[in-house]
Amino acid sequence: MRSAFTLVLALALAVCVAPMERKCLLSGSWRSDTSCRMVVSTLDKDNRFSGFYLPGPAAGYSELLTSPLEGSQQDTRLVPQPTFSFTVNWRLQDSEMAQTSVFLGQCYVDSNGEETLHALWLLREAANSPEEDWKAIRIGTSTFTRIK
Amino acid sequence: MRSAFTLVLALALAVCVAPMERKCLLSGSWRSDTSCRMVVSTLDKDNRFSGFYLPGPAAGYSELLTSPLEGSQQDTRLVPQPTFSFTVNWRLQDSEMAQTSVFLGQCYVDSNGEETLHALWLLREAANSPEEDWKAIRIGTSTFTRIK
Amino acid sequence: MRSAFTLVLALALAVCVAPMERKCLLSGSWRSDTSCRMVVSTLDKDNRFSGFYLPGPAAGYSELLTSPLEGSQQDTRLVPQPTFSFTVNWRLQDSEMAQTSVFLGQCYVDSNGEETLHALWLLREAANSPEEDWKAIRIGTSTFTRIK
Amino acid sequence: MRSAFTLVLALALAVCVAPMERKCLLSGSWRSDTSCRMVVSTLDKDNRFSGFYLPGPAAGYSELLTSPLEGSQQDTRLVPQPTFSFTVNWRLQDSEMAQTSVFLGQCYVDSNGEETLHALWLLREAANSPEEDWKAIRIGTSTFTRIK
Repeated sequence: MRSAFTLVLALALAVCVAPMERKCLLSGSWRSDTSCRMVVSTLDKDNRFSGFYLPGPAAGYSELLTSPLEGSQQDTRLVPQPTFSFTVNWRLQDSEMAQTSVFLGQCYVDSNGEETLHALWLLREAANSPEEDWKAIRIGTSTFTRIK
Repeated sequence: MRSAFTLVLALALAVCVAPMERKCLLSGSWRSDTSCRMVVSTLDKDNRFSGFYLPGPAAGYSELLTSPLEGSQQDTRLVPQPTFSFTVNWRLQDSEMAQTSVFLGQCYVDSNGEETLHALWLLREAANSPEEDWKAIRIGTSTFTRIK
Repeated sequence: MRSAFTLVLALALAVCVAPMERKCLLSGSWRSDTSCRMVVSTLDKDNRFSGFYLPGPAAGYSELLTSPLEGSQQDTRLVPQPTFSFTVNWRLQDSEMAQTSVFLGQCYVDSNGEETLHALWLLREAANSPEEDWKAIRIGTSTFTRIK
Repeated sequence: MRSAFTLVLALALAVCVAPMERKCLLSGSWRSDTSCRMVVSTLDKDNRFSGFYLPGPAAGYSELLTSPLEGSQQDTRLVPQPTFSFTVNWRLQDSEMAQTSVFLGQCYVDSNGEETLHALWLLREAANSPEEDWKAIRIGTSTFTRIK
């Protein structure tokens, strides 16, 4: 009888004191403005994470496979809108060409608590020689919102 | 007799006070670190110039033809190491694809009077739709020295 | 009598054959995603334009004054979604520091006829020496929609 | 008797066929074209490394302290001129402003066996709001040669 009461009490407390959701932890699922998806793991104690980048239906992505990512972010206990960076090593269908992207960005929270990731990225393919290095890097921006 | 003397004096002065060569006017011929050449016209009164960009032997340039450029620079009477910008509309062999580059840089003069142009550039090709816009832009740097 | 008829006919024709508005001419007024405004002149026969960039209320713009721009675009009679480039020579309050931006982008038209300009830009300030050149350039993207 | 001979033979072979030094492992010490130094650890089995970035005497670096870096590279057993990426979390004197750089590049080996790292980097500082995000990112290139 007593343990039943304890259980109920515990559940009630769990609901009441459920911590405010911590914003701008990158953990979870995100959708980019080009309809790609990104799934990020729980952060480790050093604010590092790993995950996967899933290409979307957008034109020009047809060769891309689900690709691993690794990165880190600022500690959200220290700053409410942390900067972050991560690297994606692209896995491509029918291609031995290595392609790597680095993303550098910041998570912003608006007055409704909605999180948005603003990132600038570089995408590099391997070049055969320094003479061809000039054309190895593309650049662009991506915006991500959380998939709920 | 007097006018003859005046003429000689004038010529002598003209030689003596011939102005120091003004550095960092982009007018003239330049060679890039990737062995491209660039020929820049005399500047007009608003510090605008036009010219041509000539691709070098470097790998990956094979399709490029001599291409027109247009730009402007800061006034070298106001600043010794002027910033500049110019646009190149690439003419390509066997291709109707439009490609445009913008260069943004600064001219530096070292203690020996040698001029070097440091520039960052963006190279864009036309995309078919906003969905393909993400891959339209490449980025890199170029360094130019004057061909004497 | 005859001239009155001619006038009516002319007016009728003017309405009937009013040319389809040509899309993606940059001429006109545009608003950026950071609430800046841009006013672009009529294009000349070489598809060149000039205009002004007016800073918005956004944080960090307080020093900016209305600044002149110059650029060019692909011919809209040849391509429906032209690429473009332009340079802004920033006029700053209380500052003799020269700052220049180059924008490189493309105009897209959606199925409703709405035009959007997608641009990547570089912003450069003058550096004192090649050793300080590394920190002279910022980069970002801007999106513009037409003000009607 | 026979096993002793085998051992001697094995040792002799080990010396003779001592592998050529493997090039383009990022492990070791590097100097950048702006006189910064970078010390990179031995790679782990997944081609990940950590290390430190030490600012040089160049102007504009005065606030920088030795800062940790983390990254990874392509496997040099698969490709002779691997691409790489790494992140530097800058430690700054007298500043709580977080700054992070990502480097994306490739290691090239010339005909003399000299290694050069060509990298493009992004440098980001934290912004207060999305409205200030536009000015958060600088861009540039670095070239590194091995310190022997």
